[in-house]
Amino acid sequence: MQQLFTKASHLIEALPYIRRFYGKTFVVKCGGAAMVDEKHIQTLMQDIALLHFCGIRMVVVHGGGPDISALCDRLNIKTQFSNGLRVTDAETMEIVQMVLMGKTNRALVTALNQLGVKAVGLSGQDAACLQVVKAGSTASDSTTNAQTESVDLGYVGEIKAIDPSFINTLLSASFLPVIAPIGVDEGGQAYNINADIAAGAIAGALQAKKLVVLSDVNGVYLDLHDPSTQISTVNCETVRTWLQEKRIVGGMIPKLQACLTALEQGVTNAHILDGKMPHSVLLEVFTDHGVGTLIT
Amino acid sequence: MQQLFTKASHLIEALPYIRRFYGKTFVVKCGGAAMVDEKHIQTLMQDIALLHFCGIRMVVVHGGGPDISALCDRLNIKTQFSNGLRVTDAETMEIVQMVLMGKTNRALVTALNQLGVKAVGLSGQDAACLQVVKAGSTASDSTTNAQTESVDLGYVGEIKAIDPSFINTLLSASFLPVIAPIGVDEGGQAYNINADIAAGAIAGALQAKKLVVLSDVNGVYLDLHDPSTQISTVNCETVRTWLQEKRIVGGMIPKLQACLTALEQGVTNAHILDGKMPHSVLLEVFTDHGVGTLIT
Amino acid sequence: MQQLFTKASHLIEALPYIRRFYGKTFVVKCGGAAMVDEKHIQTLMQDIALLHFCGIRMVVVHGGGPDISALCDRLNIKTQFSNGLRVTDAETMEIVQMVLMGKTNRALVTALNQLGVKAVGLSGQDAACLQVVKAGSTASDSTTNAQTESVDLGYVGEIKAIDPSFINTLLSASFLPVIAPIGVDEGGQAYNINADIAAGAIAGALQAKKLVVLSDVNGVYLDLHDPSTQISTVNCETVRTWLQEKRIVGGMIPKLQACLTALEQGVTNAHILDGKMPHSVLLEVFTDHGVGTLIT
Amino acid sequence: MQQLFTKASHLIEALPYIRRFYGKTFVVKCGGAAMVDEKHIQTLMQDIALLHFCGIRMVVVHGGGPDISALCDRLNIKTQFSNGLRVTDAETMEIVQMVLMGKTNRALVTALNQLGVKAVGLSGQDAACLQVVKAGSTASDSTTNAQTESVDLGYVGEIKAIDPSFINTLLSASFLPVIAPIGVDEGGQAYNINADIAAGAIAGALQAKKLVVLSDVNGVYLDLHDPSTQISTVNCETVRTWLQEKRIVGGMIPKLQACLTALEQGVTNAHILDGKMPHSVLLEVFTDHGVGTLIT
Amino acid sequence: MQQLFTKASHLIEALPYIRRFYGKTFVVKCGGAAMVDEKHIQTLMQDIALLHFCGIRMVVVHGGGPDISALCDRLNIKTQFSNGLRVTDAETMEIVQMVLMGKTNRALVTALNQLGVKAVGLSGQDAACLQVVKAGSTASDSTTNAQTESVDLGYVGEIKAIDPSFINTLLSASFLPVIAPIGVDEGGQAYNINADIAAGAIAGALQAKKLVVLSDVNGVYLDLHDPSTQISTVNCETVRTWLQEKRIVGGMIPKLQACLTALEQGVTNAHILDGKMPHSVLLEVFTDHGVGTLIT
Amino acid sequence: MQQLFTKASHLIEALPYIRRFYGKTFVVKCGGAAMVDEKHIQTLMQDIALLHFCGIRMVVVHGGGPDISALCDRLNIKTQFSNGLRVTDAETMEIVQMVLMGKTNRALVTALNQLGVKAVGLSGQDAACLQVVKAGSTASDSTTNAQTESVDLGYVGEIKAIDPSFINTLLSASFLPVIAPIGVDEGGQAYNINADIAAGAIAGALQAKKLVVLSDVNGVYLDLHDPSTQISTVNCETVRTWLQEKRIVGGMIPKLQACLTALEQGVTNAHILDGKMPHSVLLEVFTDHGVGTLIT
Repeated sequence: MQQLFTKASHLIEALPYIRRFYGKTFVVKCGGAAMVDEKHIQTLMQDIALLHFCGIRMVVVHGGGPDISALCDRLNIKTQFSNGLRVTDAETMEIVQMVLMGKTNRALVTALNQLGVKAVGLSGQDAACLQVVKAGSTASDSTTNAQTESVDLGYVGEIKAIDPSFINTLLSASFLPVIAPIGVDEGGQAYNINADIAAGAIAGALQAKKLVVLSDVNGVYLDLHDPSTQISTVNCETVRTWLQEKRIVGGMIPKLQACLTALEQGVTNAHILDGKMPHSVLLEVFTDHGVGTLIT
Repeated sequence: MQQLFTKASHLIEALPYIRRFYGKTFVVKCGGAAMVDEKHIQTLMQDIALLHFCGIRMVVVHGGGPDISALCDRLNIKTQFSNGLRVTDAETMEIVQMVLMGKTNRALVTALNQLGVKAVGLSGQDAACLQVVKAGSTASDSTTNAQTESVDLGYVGEIKAIDPSFINTLLSASFLPVIAPIGVDEGGQAYNINADIAAGAIAGALQAKKLVVLSDVNGVYLDLHDPSTQISTVNCETVRTWLQEKRIVGGMIPKLQACLTALEQGVTNAHILDGKMPHSVLLEVFTDHGVGTLIT
Repeated sequence: MQQLFTKASHLIEALPYIRRFYGKTFVVKCGGAAMVDEKHIQTLMQDIALLHFCGIRMVVVHGGGPDISALCDRLNIKTQFSNGLRVTDAETMEIVQMVLMGKTNRALVTALNQLGVKAVGLSGQDAACLQVVKAGSTASDSTTNAQTESVDLGYVGEIKAIDPSFINTLLSASFLPVIAPIGVDEGGQAYNINADIAAGAIAGALQAKKLVVLSDVNGVYLDLHDPSTQISTVNCETVRTWLQEKRIVGGMIPKLQACLTALEQGVTNAHILDGKMPHSVLLEVFTDHGVGTLIT
Repeated sequence: MQQLFTKASHLIEALPYIRRFYGKTFVVKCGGAAMVDEKHIQTLMQDIALLHFCGIRMVVVHGGGPDISALCDRLNIKTQFSNGLRVTDAETMEIVQMVLMGKTNRALVTALNQLGVKAVGLSGQDAACLQVVKAGSTASDSTTNAQTESVDLGYVGEIKAIDPSFINTLLSASFLPVIAPIGVDEGGQAYNINADIAAGAIAGALQAKKLVVLSDVNGVYLDLHDPSTQISTVNCETVRTWLQEKRIVGGMIPKLQACLTALEQGVTNAHILDGKMPHSVLLEVFTDHGVGTLIT
Repeated sequence: MQQLFTKASHLIEALPYIRRFYGKTFVVKCGGAAMVDEKHIQTLMQDIALLHFCGIRMVVVHGGGPDISALCDRLNIKTQFSNGLRVTDAETMEIVQMVLMGKTNRALVTALNQLGVKAVGLSGQDAACLQVVKAGSTASDSTTNAQTESVDLGYVGEIKAIDPSFINTLLSASFLPVIAPIGVDEGGQAYNINADIAAGAIAGALQAKKLVVLSDVNGVYLDLHDPSTQISTVNCETVRTWLQEKRIVGGMIPKLQACLTALEQGVTNAHILDGKMPHSVLLEVFTDHGVGTLIT
Repeated sequence: MQQLFTKASHLIEALPYIRRFYGKTFVVKCGGAAMVDEKHIQTLMQDIALLHFCGIRMVVVHGGGPDISALCDRLNIKTQFSNGLRVTDAETMEIVQMVLMGKTNRALVTALNQLGVKAVGLSGQDAACLQVVKAGSTASDSTTNAQTESVDLGYVGEIKAIDPSFINTLLSASFLPVIAPIGVDEGGQAYNINADIAAGAIAGALQAKKLVVLSDVNGVYLDLHDPSTQISTVNCETVRTWLQEKRIVGGMIPKLQACLTALEQGVTNAHILDGKMPHSVLLEVFTDHGVGTLIT
């Protein structure tokens, strides 16, 4: 009986947080470690379903890296990387679409539907909602700029415009959109988009309250080998400086760029959390104990 | 940190229950012991606010007995009881209105608003939503029948019709109605209604999923002095038999009658819980461990 | 038969006025002499019901002074006045709530419902629609400024913000709101508000077409003992001068302040009428013979 | 001043009637004597405008007999009558359309708009809302049956179906429809319809509360030369007997048939009033002194 | 079979044009040669019906010149013209109304309804949607200015204001408005309006995408006797110069003025086409082969 | 110029068909030969886009057979067939999902979006809209009954229920749903569904006006080697007899079963057309020359 009271009091502790975020929009980027096994996915989807039922307009954006590589391997398609970015030729782009929309997206949609949510999968091709140009083809290319001078990355897209009307139609009808980061150019060609960058832009276009980016590590570390350098809270200005000074490396770069994009477009808070930590999303939202890095 | 995970897992345990009741209507009758002190009220209002934010259409019906007696005493108004029912003359009826709408209702509305809910107080006089006749004036009077043969109870009303349109307007606009059990007759005269009976009839008129009646004791006991006679689950048929055989006494009679009324009009479940037990409403809804009596 | 034609022609004379105000919002402050007996109330509520059915969005704000004093007397609560303002301690505030919401408000709601209107009673506590701070706690306190330097008036509130969404929900669903002038502060504490001031602020928040303030006298007199000094029409500028020069005294001060507040926020006309004169509201609206003071 | 109070009390006397008919639909057939001069039209349109602003959904159906004959005369078109019915050849039908839609309808629409109503003129050709067949072409022809055996009345139509969606679109958007009794057959041919019959059928299709047919005489007389034979109230059954027994003659026949049609389709009351009597419509609605014949 | 494929490919060629204009508003002015016989009207109404079903919000404005003169002749009403403009006295205005609303408008409405469209006829008197003043009574009179100095044209109106709410109500409910160019002044007097000018002003008020003015000739010719001077495309600036330099004569003047009015108020394109050429409207919309004059 | 008139007259010929189907729902099953090359897909999508813009609520259901086999081959997955049905083990099911949602569906969605339609891809997993059980697990299994007695077909699903709310949300917001025939069971497991059968069931659930099934042959032949045995029109009763008598073989069996399912649930017409014939859908809809088999 005592245990029941403890449970009840934990539910009640969530009340002020639910109240604060009721009717607001959250965009969660899932990927990498958060999705390596069924159990992690299940835990994460429970968090998302709970937030959905608590009146938060939830949007999921996912990647699918390892599965893409796995299918490429099975089909003997050699994947080239250039400065850590996958070179996406036509054959690879076909694999990307099949894995993202036909495998990863299906798994997340089904997991959420099993929890009673009405989840709906889509990519930026549906209703042409994510319009892209070939990355590197414009001066303002924030994703890939300096590094990609000499290599043609192929069908890697940079977001040019987002038409949020389809996503808003779904949210208003209480469906939960699960979005694969594929965009489409004016000619109808599909492009791979970095999932972090896509999540940041979507959060901005939806005027979300929060962007949550799940990572393999628990937030930003100035020195990945030194846990004490984990950053708890940081503002945009400092993040911009770090990026310019190249103090941030690897996959954390697009995550921070995504956060900056979102915040610049009016998103209130961006979080980088450890996708492997159980219920990290729930804890970040429903407690005052931030478990990763908050960017404001 | 471990404690945080425990909290998160308790939240997640609520998921299947939230999912089941999302968009459904619950009517909660608060009164008596549940409202003797600020702390109990606060705990109960937290439960109700949480359920509201989890997408349940919550309706509160309250009584106000002790406060009414207290004000009568201060004003030297002698209260007569007849078979446990307050004889309500014109002067007393004025006190009933002032205490219920001007004190108890205000306290509950304010407590809920402080928790971020948009609560709205009303009585059956507002939009004439609870239409009554003088109790005992009809043959089908289920409240007071046998006992009241010879005594005129005064302005004690029996519900004749409920117009749920005002309450539904509030629910559809996401307001939480807090209802004082005062009805109005064709001539505009106000009548006191037993709060349990009012809650049952309102639950029926709203086609609620659940009616929750808070009591001083934790459900129905066949022998109040013998805890082992507590009833965990019972069906309507049996309850009707008990009432006919007068195995139920005192304030539990209208509570059971209210449950029967609600269930006969299509409410799925009715619960009688101990209002003094912290979070009994939450536990009843969010766990499989029923803590009172369930009537189906 | 001739009498019938006369009646019909009187109805037809109302046509241009109905046409002019169709779909507009009127706020009527009832109080004092207009509510001393049943017959006055009944006559006034008929006027309001008729305007409601003629397509005007009617809102009633009421006071309740004498009833509050009467209950205080019965309970031996000594009422102190400071410069004509009631000092409202916690015990008195409880009386104020009970009388306003439990007695006066109930009477008006019921009288209107008996006339076929769907009237709904509320105070500023419902949906927290009238947010107040303690009067005198801010520099800009227009109600009580100079006079209250040295005396703590207790729970007398100054309106800080009005959230009109609940009132507008009611009006859009064709309910007629009847509002008791009680506000709520951030901590949930109830405060008494001067009913005239509340009516003016509500008229402003609703962008009403007209504010009608019922008084014991028929409009503004520069010298109350000299009927020839009654003012028929006056503009804001002049009213402000009068108030500064203290040419206005007593209860007319908050009435004029209320009119100024409303007009400054976009209300087109404000009227001060004699609540004792039968059908003064109807005559003011439906004829060209203004019967009180018009402030523009 | 006393006169003002008298006016106000006359307005207030209208309150219970306004309340009773608020939101209901009335169809008024205007024609003949009610429209012989500007002053009668103006008085009638004032009544209709007042009822419109009091929340009644008003629909006007008009005839145009004398004007049609006048234009025929000016154009040297010989009008033949057969048993009192105008034989409508193609040339006459063209005149009918021009007079009804281009003259009578325009005059009524403009008179109402001048009173602040948003009136809209239409015939059964608009949105093909009145679908007719040639009168006499079906067995069930209730308008013209026995009398017309041997004469071809030409383009005189019998209503086959009414599509009320256009009229309801107008009413829901607060426009007041003014309808000329012209129908259209499957091939697009226009037909003249008896205006009384059209009004009855429209009242039925709209599920109106009242049908008011204005006549040259004040209701039904069993002997037109004996005022004492005026009928105050009569039921359908009796009217049907009178018609079968041919106790009713002339233009009163289609008026009574129209009333029967309306009542059989669910209209609550039908009235036959004297269109020359000033404000007869208003008096019938707003007093208990019925001034013509009521059919129930 | 081959012929079927040809048909299908012609339908498919229309696809990019349908797509471009889907949901946009077009105003078509029909008159003169386009309406001389049944066959031309039928062909034109087919074009309009097809565009309506393809998702374009179609509005028709029509004239009625020859029919007006014909009826005047039959009634021995002498028509005076002043600088090519009909002098409209009271008697003539009555004829104008009868012909426009009772004949021409009826014919167009019926022709469209026969094609399955829900067409609705109206003039500027309905809901008082075209508000006019007497032409020449204001300094800014663009229709008739210089020419009319000395002659009183009678009831010829100049548009002062358009209230598009009634027309938009019809379009939103998928009705197709067919508008006769009659306006109404403040006193309720009807006025004749030049149909081209009315169409231009209506296109502007509706923020139409296209105004199509049908003429007796296929666009603008600088020399009507020299086909080689036909103008294919011209901008507003040049048209204004031509009008000032009086290089344009006769009925083309108001057509060009109407186009200017529309374009100045935000209409994208204005076209002047030959109403006698079969399907000229369809060809202008659904091909790249402009067949008249385009003004941008 | 003559050619332009011919084009226009072909467009006008479509008018009665557009009118007839305006606002109706069509379900088109695309597959097999209709989708073997880009050019056929492009032609078919043009037909569908044109019908969409003409106000028909279009829904596309597609298969993906050859692409599935091709990917299985590349991955060395041996496909077993049992009586012509693909045995779908877990690994194959993964391929099915990737090809259908990640390749075929993407291609159709993009082709439609390039034509200006807002197309949206989905499978029965989205919002769990196609609920299935394992084929053969119920007695009423109409897809696979007799043939599958002894072989376990694996993840081949039989439709148990369709929740059309998501599809209707899309149609009402003017999106065009493109549906891959994958269903989901209660446990969240994905199942392959025969695309013809899925299309028939979806047409039934949407109460479509027409089901159009594209085939490799132009309708039903009683003897595939004898063109003279092509059936132009047939009713359900006859089709049922043919199926029982096994006069129909191969892939035509599920096509006819789909048509029967749709017609039994209220779809008006079902068509089987040759997907290789250019614009066969358009010709079937927009002419009276049926080009395949019509089942009524």
